[in-house]
Amino acid sequence: MTDPQACHQRYMQRALELAAQGRFSTAPNPMVGCVVVADGKIVGEGWHQRAGEPHAEVYALGEAGALAKGAAVYVTLEPCSHFGRTPPCADALIKAEVATVVVAMKDPNPLVSGEGIERLRANGIEVIVGILEQQALALNNGFVARMQRQRPWLRVKMAASLDGRTALSNGESQWITSTDARRDVHRWRAQSGAILSTAKTVLADNAILTARHPQAERQPTRVIIDSQGLLTGQEALFKEPFPIIVVHAPDTIVERTWAAHVECITIVRTNNGHIDLTQLMHVLADKQVNSVWTECGAQLAGALLTAELVDELVLYLAPKLMGHHGHGLLNLPAFTHMSQVPELTLKDVRQVADDVRIIAVPRRVRGDLTS
Amino acid sequence: MTDPQACHQRYMQRALELAAQGRFSTAPNPMVGCVVVADGKIVGEGWHQRAGEPHAEVYALGEAGALAKGAAVYVTLEPCSHFGRTPPCADALIKAEVATVVVAMKDPNPLVSGEGIERLRANGIEVIVGILEQQALALNNGFVARMQRQRPWLRVKMAASLDGRTALSNGESQWITSTDARRDVHRWRAQSGAILSTAKTVLADNAILTARHPQAERQPTRVIIDSQGLLTGQEALFKEPFPIIVVHAPDTIVERTWAAHVECITIVRTNNGHIDLTQLMHVLADKQVNSVWTECGAQLAGALLTAELVDELVLYLAPKLMGHHGHGLLNLPAFTHMSQVPELTLKDVRQVADDVRIIAVPRRVRGDLTS
Repeated sequence: MTDPQACHQRYMQRALELAAQGRFSTAPNPMVGCVVVADGKIVGEGWHQRAGEPHAEVYALGEAGALAKGAAVYVTLEPCSHFGRTPPCADALIKAEVATVVVAMKDPNPLVSGEGIERLRANGIEVIVGILEQQALALNNGFVARMQRQRPWLRVKMAASLDGRTALSNGESQWITSTDARRDVHRWRAQSGAILSTAKTVLADNAILTARHPQAERQPTRVIIDSQGLLTGQEALFKEPFPIIVVHAPDTIVERTWAAHVECITIVRTNNGHIDLTQLMHVLADKQVNSVWTECGAQLAGALLTAELVDELVLYLAPKLMGHHGHGLLNLPAFTHMSQVPELTLKDVRQVADDVRIIAVPRRVRGDLTS
Repeated sequence: MTDPQACHQRYMQRALELAAQGRFSTAPNPMVGCVVVADGKIVGEGWHQRAGEPHAEVYALGEAGALAKGAAVYVTLEPCSHFGRTPPCADALIKAEVATVVVAMKDPNPLVSGEGIERLRANGIEVIVGILEQQALALNNGFVARMQRQRPWLRVKMAASLDGRTALSNGESQWITSTDARRDVHRWRAQSGAILSTAKTVLADNAILTARHPQAERQPTRVIIDSQGLLTGQEALFKEPFPIIVVHAPDTIVERTWAAHVECITIVRTNNGHIDLTQLMHVLADKQVNSVWTECGAQLAGALLTAELVDELVLYLAPKLMGHHGHGLLNLPAFTHMSQVPELTLKDVRQVADDVRIIAVPRRVRGDLTS
């Protein structure tokens, strides 16, 4: 492998694989992987495991030891140049006297972006930027979204029959999809910073909305929109001691005391009378939520889509046919021409055990961030 | 390749590939392919091209010439032993003095099944039956269906948005799917013996329902259910000179003269007031239709499913969201429990250009025929 570009890509690919091991644990920090290469051999590897713990570079340099001197370091995200909960990685790389640092993507935080790279270069280290950048951006789309547009990456999960029905006319819906599809859902939940739902959905399904997955390291914050004040605090949801945010409107009447793990926030209504969903997303970003996994009914799903807040639709279709009496997938305005219909781009289509899983990206929001 | 079973499969696979070349032309005959192998080499190949023309064996034996003597012959369907429009292939194999005949599947016609094999064996030829039988049955599922249950293989094609809507509330539906998906539809049409639709669909879309595909060799018979007598004979459909069957009910009032390429048939109504669809399928089988491709609205699709006549649902989903005001995919009874909902098994899930294509087999009819 004498082609330097192919070489770079190979080591960066490995660094990305390492980074991805943090998908269940690093939030709200980004996933980062690092590989140290000396004389054409990997002599150190590392990945960022949890906020507050060392960064990927520290592990990789530690493993490389004296071999780091003069080595090439591959890191999926620009090394930090500031003191956070740990000392700056740029300094560690300078101290280790590495020769080259190859970076997949710059720090997406506009306040510090490029500073780590500058610091390395100022200290005589060669820096190459942009190797497998698209993959690196996609890996951390949540962190990037929060940094660059001050709102989380929003996925809307829906489950329906092949004919797009989410429940029978009497509301019966358990279970449409298979056990394997539901396991897949729990894996997504475990990778998300928050789960968004509504009081109606919680009450209808007696939903707990925790991530029940063997790899789940931390529980996503459960964010429940309850503008009508329907929740009593006694629902099964509240019995699980993980964080919950209940979202009220300014006019929501609630006279109850909430448990310590429950936070109530108030979000204004927009002209259409609904909670301002864009505002809610900004609030969640302020609370360091990188990614939101939404499980809700046709109304909120439609509202999120119409507000152009949906980054990905994750649709599970069970091979069943529920017919025209069933509940529809999402409520949208009454379009009169096909040109008005929201269009998406297919990102992934596959069979998950007995069901179909389709990931699609709404075209309007596509392009403002990588996916 | 000394394993005789692997050897058999390899040559039979080739014979199946040859057979499949007839997919646009052999109806109402089955597709058949044949390979002659002498001293471990293919010395002759053939496939049945159209009804009335020589069978696969004749072409393959002709190509093999004197080398057929003592050879092994692989044929995807039991050689015929009766005089039809061509002399029996069993006799041709006997005359060529082949040593072995390997057959994928027996003749599905219960009146003659096994006779060709018997005749070969009675003449000292070794016969092996059942190599790649499932593939052979699947290839000719239409012919098999007509022979074994006296009705065609029925596919229902539907096209919808991701949320299962086939049209906007005002009926607007052109176009939901992409050009590539519609090209795929024309390929299916070209392989079908008949296209089934309703007068309502024809009138709503001004549909012609011909197979517009470069490989289309023959046009499927267009079968239009018109129990209300809505068709005038002046619609665009009738301007194409290919066969049309208009299906009336005994009480349908029609006082018009039809063009020569139009046949009218009458089918009784069942207790629910609709045309007896099972009866219609038997009539089409009598008319040598092996496979029916259905393009219709939610009502007929639901009725076919409820009557357990659907062998395959071919569903195109465009990455669009049309919302709850749109027309539903199919009309079914108002179920009250998930256990009542028709279940299917996924057979094929793929992306066709920008759209998703799902082929699913209703579970109730599954198993009575291979698919």
